[in-house]
Amino acid sequence: MSIAESIDDEARMTIQSTPETTQVNGTTFERADDNDRILSIQSHVAYGYVGGKAAVFPLQCIGYDVDVVNTVNFSNHTGEFQIPLEPASLLSKTLCNTGYGRFGGTRASAEELASIFKTMDEAGLLSPHRLLTGYIPNAAALKVIKELAQKLKSRNPHLIYLMDPVLGDSGKLYVSQDVIPIYKEIFPFATIITPNWFEVETLTGIPLLSLSALHNALIILHEHVQHVVISSIPLQPWLFKVIPETMQPPASTDNQQDYLLCISSSRTIGTSSHSIVHARLVPLITGYFSGVGDLFSALTLGHFNPSPTPSDGKLHSATQTPLSFAAAAALHKTHSILKFTNTFAARLPPEDRTTTDDERDAANPVRKFRRMRGRELRLVQGQHILREEWREGQGKDLQFWDRFWDSS
Amino acid sequence: MSIAESIDDEARMTIQSTPETTQVNGTTFERADDNDRILSIQSHVAYGYVGGKAAVFPLQCIGYDVDVVNTVNFSNHTGEFQIPLEPASLLSKTLCNTGYGRFGGTRASAEELASIFKTMDEAGLLSPHRLLTGYIPNAAALKVIKELAQKLKSRNPHLIYLMDPVLGDSGKLYVSQDVIPIYKEIFPFATIITPNWFEVETLTGIPLLSLSALHNALIILHEHVQHVVISSIPLQPWLFKVIPETMQPPASTDNQQDYLLCISSSRTIGTSSHSIVHARLVPLITGYFSGVGDLFSALTLGHFNPSPTPSDGKLHSATQTPLSFAAAAALHKTHSILKFTNTFAARLPPEDRTTTDDERDAANPVRKFRRMRGRELRLVQGQHILREEWREGQGKDLQFWDRFWDSS
Repeated sequence: MSIAESIDDEARMTIQSTPETTQVNGTTFERADDNDRILSIQSHVAYGYVGGKAAVFPLQCIGYDVDVVNTVNFSNHTGEFQIPLEPASLLSKTLCNTGYGRFGGTRASAEELASIFKTMDEAGLLSPHRLLTGYIPNAAALKVIKELAQKLKSRNPHLIYLMDPVLGDSGKLYVSQDVIPIYKEIFPFATIITPNWFEVETLTGIPLLSLSALHNALIILHEHVQHVVISSIPLQPWLFKVIPETMQPPASTDNQQDYLLCISSSRTIGTSSHSIVHARLVPLITGYFSGVGDLFSALTLGHFNPSPTPSDGKLHSATQTPLSFAAAAALHKTHSILKFTNTFAARLPPEDRTTTDDERDAANPVRKFRRMRGRELRLVQGQHILREEWREGQGKDLQFWDRFWDSS
Repeated sequence: MSIAESIDDEARMTIQSTPETTQVNGTTFERADDNDRILSIQSHVAYGYVGGKAAVFPLQCIGYDVDVVNTVNFSNHTGEFQIPLEPASLLSKTLCNTGYGRFGGTRASAEELASIFKTMDEAGLLSPHRLLTGYIPNAAALKVIKELAQKLKSRNPHLIYLMDPVLGDSGKLYVSQDVIPIYKEIFPFATIITPNWFEVETLTGIPLLSLSALHNALIILHEHVQHVVISSIPLQPWLFKVIPETMQPPASTDNQQDYLLCISSSRTIGTSSHSIVHARLVPLITGYFSGVGDLFSALTLGHFNPSPTPSDGKLHSATQTPLSFAAAAALHKTHSILKFTNTFAARLPPEDRTTTDDERDAANPVRKFRRMRGRELRLVQGQHILREEWREGQGKDLQFWDRFWDSS
């Protein structure tokens, strides 16, 4: 067979033999060139998986073209924050508590970010169908993001913007106070927000100590945002008491604190109706991991399908919302990656998996580095998890919390 | 089934059901944590696929943990160079001729790069098994790369360093003259280099106009580098005359210029023996694409297996070298992605696939942007191509050029 023939054969094979390649016909080209393009604005680290490194590869694995703007360029995550002890640290965010304790690199100035967006715009490269933002280093940069979100939303009302309001975790603020009001100003442009419980408290000023507090916090967040996911609330006694029986952990459970609750809440803005709430418990995985919140938010955006149709096989049953569907997929895949990573970390030599001990870390920094290195998310090795096609009804859906609003 | 049980089931499934997951046992952990880690130092663009965007995702798809250091952070490829007319532009390099004509963003200073490497080193995060470098913005930055390569090589003699000496293409230099001598100084630390024909001419000072010229150029490059791949030499008459009959294009071919020759050449440094040369013709795909050389180099490094063993199913036949094996895989996958991208581009609306016309582009820049946008490599949509497990003997191997050195 001549070279030309053999290559043509291979080309035919390549172009016709897989699902992806159907995207080259007219119809799916539109989808691929439009609906499948996400602009991700995140921190970048050379080593490890937080921010963009935790978000972009998973989104590419499930088929999105991702435009990547880096808010910082660091060597590794910075660990400039205390290590929290609360379970919520499981869904800790970019530049979170589990970093390597020192870092090299640069932050993009507000001007540099603005110049990148301006040039992309002039070149006709700034019309993403979806927008994802995470950790933003400072108020000036966050204002640039606000202007960008406003512009993209006004141009395309169908823009799906997932804003992860990265403020802090487990009672500790990562960012300067002055970003908090700016995040609130961005709410009207956001389709979905994914605060952790501490960020809910910070953004609403309401401590989550009762169901009515949770009601009030959600009411405040829903004033401007249609879709809210609270990725992980520790299953404290007050929460344990109010969740539906079908959601409760097995009776065998000694300690309710070993579980986290993920809540999705959707409502139509401008209506007086309460939101539709779904939730699901996941067991706590002890240990400190970074970038888990970034991964969860990316997967929530990636699996969010605002107008499911039978044609794409993603028609939701009456009991699911587009948000609960997406959150269930993100929760399942994130939890699976964590289990996968945790199993890997457990096989490491003892010195690479010692538990935290700040004093001994201080005496011997390398000890901490080795531990952190073993805790990096195993995204590449676990990419089969990321690529799983998600279908509801596999026993991992979020459950409808039908009487959630009854008491208010 | 209780939530805890269902999650444990899923966890078991996740942890035992796939090939990747075997990597969590002791043995493969070593491999995953060592041999599979690549440090990639490339340019970054927010939109499109050149430099790191063309190299990292493909390497992640085939299972490598990739540490990513960005030498520039741009909005898009810069197109600060002329559009060449030679076929070699098919394997054009980062920041090549097909850019969007303007760009925003920043270059990393030599100091910033040095600071990132220093911090990674201090944190014990600087022991990659493989190193990949592409476009380096200037001489000062390139010197930092040289020091890094020297340090990593001295620490780990088994380091596999693929250096893509990005200088220019098709008779045009992208970089300032002063980087050329520094690239030559880096040769002794490189395992593989992947110059295009113009870079071979520039680095050796020898115009590739005859087989003896090609001999002399390879002899010069092999003085310090064991493995050389010349990714695409236009099949000019002199070359057409000297290649083995078995490599020649089908007799039906009207124009030999419609083909490019990929050559791999390996020799043991310090021996007087000639190198072992393999080659393969691929048909020219008309049109201008960016990042193709970056993709080819990344895949060559990713598929290079210096000590193939039966156990990993990658034992090469006597007629193949580790380099010819890797180059064949890279050539096949790169060519397939190009065909895939080209098919997509052909379905675009006419205004997005107009052929080049500098005058009309100047009058209407958006016209050029739209064309370029349609030419971005379809890496995400074609990831099934990237993930193909490569085996020799599929009719796409490079062929042994047994009498290559006879005339010298």
